[in-house]
Amino acid sequence: MPAAGERLIRLTELGFTLPNPPQPLGQYTTVVRADSALLLSGMLPLDAGRAAVTGRLGEERTVEDGRYAARLAALNALAVAAHAAGGLDRVGRLLRATVFMTTTPTFTAHAMVADGASALFAALFDEPHTRVAVGAYTLPLGATVVLDATFELGDEARR
Amino acid sequence: MPAAGERLIRLTELGFTLPNPPQPLGQYTTVVRADSALLLSGMLPLDAGRAAVTGRLGEERTVEDGRYAARLAALNALAVAAHAAGGLDRVGRLLRATVFMTTTPTFTAHAMVADGASALFAALFDEPHTRVAVGAYTLPLGATVVLDATFELGDEARR
Amino acid sequence: MPAAGERLIRLTELGFTLPNPPQPLGQYTTVVRADSALLLSGMLPLDAGRAAVTGRLGEERTVEDGRYAARLAALNALAVAAHAAGGLDRVGRLLRATVFMTTTPTFTAHAMVADGASALFAALFDEPHTRVAVGAYTLPLGATVVLDATFELGDEARR
Repeated sequence: MPAAGERLIRLTELGFTLPNPPQPLGQYTTVVRADSALLLSGMLPLDAGRAAVTGRLGEERTVEDGRYAARLAALNALAVAAHAAGGLDRVGRLLRATVFMTTTPTFTAHAMVADGASALFAALFDEPHTRVAVGAYTLPLGATVVLDATFELGDEARR
Repeated sequence: MPAAGERLIRLTELGFTLPNPPQPLGQYTTVVRADSALLLSGMLPLDAGRAAVTGRLGEERTVEDGRYAARLAALNALAVAAHAAGGLDRVGRLLRATVFMTTTPTFTAHAMVADGASALFAALFDEPHTRVAVGAYTLPLGATVVLDATFELGDEARR
Repeated sequence: MPAAGERLIRLTELGFTLPNPPQPLGQYTTVVRADSALLLSGMLPLDAGRAAVTGRLGEERTVEDGRYAARLAALNALAVAAHAAGGLDRVGRLLRATVFMTTTPTFTAHAMVADGASALFAALFDEPHTRVAVGAYTLPLGATVVLDATFELGDEARR
């Protein structure tokens, strides 16, 4: 078990802070607990509540923009999971991340973009996660990335 | 626990009826039970067994058409879940809905379209669900919407 | 319980062999076990470690090419699941397959393409699986198909 706040400290050392958990865009909620799993709604690259990265990769947006968007979406996912679990250290691990991204028709660097999220998760969780990267045609609010994440609660949070 | 048939009554009051559970389009089945979860295959906006809404949102189809398509797909999902659980009232809750929709390249109103499904689910289940909305390039049979849903069985149906 | 190696024999009779489990394309792993489920990362149509089928269905690629790509992705998924479970016969069943495929804007034969994977799974597992088929805009490495699969461990492998 990590000491209380260990992951928040690691996040700060990496230069990041947890945003406020985002509000849903419609008649759903951002997270549901099912047994020991935390299922999250699609996370956008929100910064201060607004879609900070919009547009297609390979056109208006570079791979580096996409990595930044994926990391922002990951930070929002961590905020939601931490809130639901009662703290970031009570989240056990990320089970699966599906990273949808809008691209030009010939874009192929999905893995590099999705690694913007995966690298952050890998820095915080000891156990690795699975990942699916898909080029979408469009995404809500014109966002460049949507992250679909399923976490597992840690032992303490399961009780 | 709701009284027997309570959700069907609410559905009728809302002006809807459960369709017959749809047939799969290939070598798969429409629903699998895994522990207390009901995993559904992709649900199309079927009406009397045919894809009732086809075409892209923002072009041939309006947001209102999309909401109608999402609701039809949701009704098909409810029919499948009810059949698998032994009645709509034996379905516990919807855990997650992923709503894929075909759009024009600049469409951004995914949340309004997906709410066509979410509003129906919210009217029937006490607990909220998580949601992911994605703009696909194409969908089976040219459908405007495909709904990917995971339900949880209610206490009675788990025994 | 099948005799040891029964599914590998069936696979050989069908004319297929399990490839080596693929390497991830980034900072993730190819499979995670969560309770009795095996969650896999997106599987590409890899042959000898390279994307064997690229390009859009309906344009550079035919439905038959797509079926071949879906089968290749399914073979990679089976290799990963078998490796994680300690043998193909220790994998219980496939719970859900989501088949993403890149298409031209008017393509509608998603079900026929996805059946390239489903037919193989149906030949190996007694119980049916659920499926979602989606037309993506682009996929990693320009691949024609990405398969997102969740298996359930068999009784022996759960202990």
